[in-house]
Amino acid sequence: MKRAALTRDWPVRRVRARGVAAVETDVLAVEEPLELRVRGRSVAVVMRTPGHDADLAAGFLLTEGVVHSADDIYDIMQCRTAKRAEKGNVVEVVLPKGVRVDFAALTRHVFSATSCGLCGKATIEAVQQHFSKVQRPLRVTAQVLQSLPAQLNAAQPVFKSTGGLHATALFDAQGTMLVAREDVGRHNAMDKVLGHALRADWLPLERHILLVSGRVSFEIMQKALAARVSVVAGISAPTSLAAEFARANHQTLVGFLRGDRLNVYAGRLAPAR
Amino acid sequence: MKRAALTRDWPVRRVRARGVAAVETDVLAVEEPLELRVRGRSVAVVMRTPGHDADLAAGFLLTEGVVHSADDIYDIMQCRTAKRAEKGNVVEVVLPKGVRVDFAALTRHVFSATSCGLCGKATIEAVQQHFSKVQRPLRVTAQVLQSLPAQLNAAQPVFKSTGGLHATALFDAQGTMLVAREDVGRHNAMDKVLGHALRADWLPLERHILLVSGRVSFEIMQKALAARVSVVAGISAPTSLAAEFARANHQTLVGFLRGDRLNVYAGRLAPAR
Repeated sequence: MKRAALTRDWPVRRVRARGVAAVETDVLAVEEPLELRVRGRSVAVVMRTPGHDADLAAGFLLTEGVVHSADDIYDIMQCRTAKRAEKGNVVEVVLPKGVRVDFAALTRHVFSATSCGLCGKATIEAVQQHFSKVQRPLRVTAQVLQSLPAQLNAAQPVFKSTGGLHATALFDAQGTMLVAREDVGRHNAMDKVLGHALRADWLPLERHILLVSGRVSFEIMQKALAARVSVVAGISAPTSLAAEFARANHQTLVGFLRGDRLNVYAGRLAPAR
Repeated sequence: MKRAALTRDWPVRRVRARGVAAVETDVLAVEEPLELRVRGRSVAVVMRTPGHDADLAAGFLLTEGVVHSADDIYDIMQCRTAKRAEKGNVVEVVLPKGVRVDFAALTRHVFSATSCGLCGKATIEAVQQHFSKVQRPLRVTAQVLQSLPAQLNAAQPVFKSTGGLHATALFDAQGTMLVAREDVGRHNAMDKVLGHALRADWLPLERHILLVSGRVSFEIMQKALAARVSVVAGISAPTSLAAEFARANHQTLVGFLRGDRLNVYAGRLAPAR
């Protein structure tokens, strides 16, 4: 298989204390979809960093209980008819006749049934069929953003005692925390916050800010867009696809929000008051 | 809905430098399965921390594009016929007639089709139908374990430049690193390492050690067992279900492996040489 890029250069605006630096180039970890096919059937789309895709496919089938040894796999190939841009993002596993596959148990949430191609752009477009772009993006100041991590931290009692939980919090445009949730799963913490907002009839959340305790991936941005959140901030790094998604949907994406520092990967902030 | 416990006490053996402390009690973040049902059909089982389950269900359906406002949900109820031990782990969402549900697109990998109950124990038993317990657990010394993080760190070039990747590495019983992989997804990094081992015909991995860069969840332990790995170590905290799973399957589970410190949550180490 061809060698894939693991990182992508991305323009970032670094804010340090009260000063706003010029645009610099940052390096993001690449996130791209990989479609796994078994006997010609699509069984899963996983968001992954390209590279070692045949190993990923083999490990997926091992840990799903489909294959048990090297003999259980005849071959692993890239889909040949894929378009140039999508090349490398579809893998077909060829199994010997004797290996039984329970497709009903194996198949995971295959959200886009593309012909033979799949790429970040196609993934973003698939999401846009369900959720429209942000219409009136909220602009917040760096000062408001810098006030959020301490509030999230105070709302993480279980993390403090276990070190084992992710957290997500929702704030209004002035930076007042409205709801915070902790969970062993990052997506669950997000769903709990957004589900609370939905049931409280706060949607759409175009004038709100979401803060997540860790890294910001494509799926986090997708969930934010479903609730029409226009500003998403993370304590850690975003992925390449999260940044691309934010830019395409007019969301503001902030990463490495720590102390008086932050990086803006998409959208822009309001000027300091 | 009833108030659920977010943490669970768990006996831990803390190793500090060369000394082995007596067994103390540690606090773990609770991880339990939650089955989501829509119109009586099971659409997903998510591993989550109990609590705010109605919000989780609502947020899941929002971010999947099924519901769009509070009006789209008629009610969210706990499954009534569940057995006592499993109570609170099945949630039924009642939707108004007008809400369309594409079950084929929504349904995720529902690995255990239990009647109305689901709990950690049932989840562990469902996995054990596919993968048998470790037969001859490897015993390693604290010194071997303490030599692993520096090796993993040296094998994380992309994390160093982006801060955005998870990593997993496989070591032999002497602590020599055999393969390491980075990925935006923790499960992918694991699958890539195990898939490499499968294709290299190294399975079963009963005499090997796995190290993951972050937290250790149920799914990480399940994947390790699929390859018959008997020792799993994490840089951060394990969840309650990861510890229960390790104990049930005769795996050794080590957490907070940092510097000359580590915690043993299941199994045991070899005495220092």
